[in-house]
Formats: sequence, structure tokens, C-alpha cells
Amino acid sequence: MNNKSLGNMIRLAALTLAFTQPAYSGEAPVQAAPNGIEMPKYYKNWRVIGVSHRTDNHSLRAILGNSIAIDAARSGNTRPWPDGAVLAKLVWKDTEHPDFPDATVPGELLHAEFMIKDGRRYKTTEGWGFARWLGMAQKPYGDNADFAKECASCHARAKDSDFVFTRPAELP
Amino acid sequence: MNNKSLGNMIRLAALTLAFTQPAYSGEAPVQAAPNGIEMPKYYKNWRVIGVSHRTDNHSLRAILGNSIAIDAARSGNTRPWPDGAVLAKLVWKDTEHPDFPDATVPGELLHAEFMIKDGRRYKTTEGWGFARWLGMAQKPYGDNADFAKECASCHARAKDSDFVFTRPAELP
Repeated sequence: MNNKSLGNMIRLAALTLAFTQPAYSGEAPVQAAPNGIEMPKYYKNWRVIGVSHRTDNHSLRAILGNSIAIDAARSGNTRPWPDGAVLAKLVWKDTEHPDFPDATVPGELLHAEFMIKDGRRYKTTEGWGFARWLGMAQKPYGDNADFAKECASCHARAKDSDFVFTRPAELP
Repeated sequence: MNNKSLGNMIRLAALTLAFTQPAYSGEAPVQAAPNGIEMPKYYKNWRVIGVSHRTDNHSLRAILGNSIAIDAARSGNTRPWPDGAVLAKLVWKDTEHPDFPDATVPGELLHAEFMIKDGRRYKTTEGWGFARWLGMAQKPYGDNADFAKECASCHARAKDSDFVFTRPAELP
């Protein structure tokens, strides 16, 4: 093999890697949740729907959505959310900003959690599939598939907004 | 003109609109900031870098970045941030969640603000161009170009993190 063919092979290998690997390295496969839900790929690239702050457990959250969820959120069609919508919530420990004591910012990542709308598949949990992965280790939450009942039971109080706490934030 | 030609013309007009209009309607052109900075297009589709909460002025924030900023944030290359990085901060009034009193969520949009890294162009403000647009009306902030001095003066206390308060949030 001459140098030119080798160069072409390397370029081809680099291109193949660029299109088949995650955008950022270090992303090991993540174990499915006990109810069989797999972590959505590339959710870290999804667009933002809102943010929230909890004073009871001192956490800060970013709520992202897949394309179906973003289209629904940004056109006001969220009661109900359409089938195929997926919401991702990233939850961090609320932490004082080192240079700005009147601000709190994300500390340790507590968990990433998801709601997947599929009225038929998730009939027993109000049309939503729930899954959560804990911390940077992304350990699936729950001992068995019943964990989702706990999620649905808390979300029952958001019945009037299709069991979703997130209200899409106002955008210009 | 027969009905078929008319139908084709309508379909062509619809297609043209679909590819030339913003994804969401109601997006009027926005006036430039007093220092000449134009609002970045499509920033609402940028990916998330972090969130924050201010207890002094009761606001909740989402911090997004263009591709250069996201690459820098997610690979840990933010001291300094690279030229071309643009950060967008969406700021809402901190509001109690109607169904979850221990949570606060975005209320009224207060402003959208931007930091644009260009070491040569913005030498007098530590390498960053600043701009802010107020509320849903997106009114440019500041009476004249000097408004950016106010921004830079507050950001001086974030000198150790290249004058940026946002620390990229931990992501798995």
C-alpha cells in the first residue's frame, strides 16, 4: 500500500468515526430502566423547554424536549402532549455560586429523568413512560418495574396539565 | 387558470414559506443593541450549558450556547472561552408552581442576554461583546453603546473564569 492509499484509508476511518460515535467521548452504554425503557440517545443535544428550582430538596433543573415535544411546547399544544413527545429533566444539587453569593448554580448531577408519551403503551401510568438514571454513573432507578407507579402517583397532582409539572417557559 | 394550476401554486407558496420563515410564527425582526450587536438568530434552538437561580432579584435562568460554546463547555475548554463562542441567557421571573408549592418555575420573561467572544473586536470589554433585549417585546437594553461598560464592570468579579459567571453544568 502506498502513502496515498493509507492517507485515504485514515480519512475514511475518521469520517466513519465522526458519524457513528457520540459527539463527546466517554459515553458508555447505559443499562435500561427496570421497566425496559432505554435512555434516549443524544438527549443532551435537545432544546430547552424550561427550568425549575425546588426549595424542598434544594435542586435546580433544566427540562429539555425531543423535536415532537419542542414543537408541541412552542406551539402551545401540550394539553395533552402528543404521542412521541419525550421530556428530559436534568437535576443538579443547588449550590452557591463561588463569585456571586446571591446566585445558585448546578452542583453535583443528581439524576436525569424522562417522560415518554405513548397513550397505548403506557396506559397504566396515564399515558406516560417514566425512567430515571442516577448521578454521573447513570444507575437505573428502581428495584423493579413498579417504580413507575411512584412517579405516576406524584404526577397525579399535575392531572390538569396532562400529568406534566413542566409548563413551557415563555419565549419571545 | 384551472384548479390544478392554482393548487400547484398554493403548494409551491406553502413550501417556500416553510423554508424561508422562522420555525415559529410571530418572530418580527429585532432592533440591534445600541453597540450594534444584532440578536443571534435561532438561539432558542441552541443547546443548554447550565441553569441558575438568583435570590436577590428572584429570577430563574437557562444558559444556552452556540456550537462553538457547546463544544468548549462540554470538553472543558472555557478558560478562556474560544473566539466565536456565544452564550445566551434567558431570564424569567421566579414564580411559584401552581401545583407544587415547593417549586419555582419561569414566570414572565424578563430578558434575553448574550455574550459574544471576540478578543480583538471587544478588546475594551475584556474580549466579550454584551447585548440584552428586554421582555417579550425584545426592546434593546441601554441608551447608548456605553451600556456594555455596566455589563463588563459586574462581570469583572468572574475574572478567573474568563469573565463568565456560567460554569457549565455537570453532564454524564
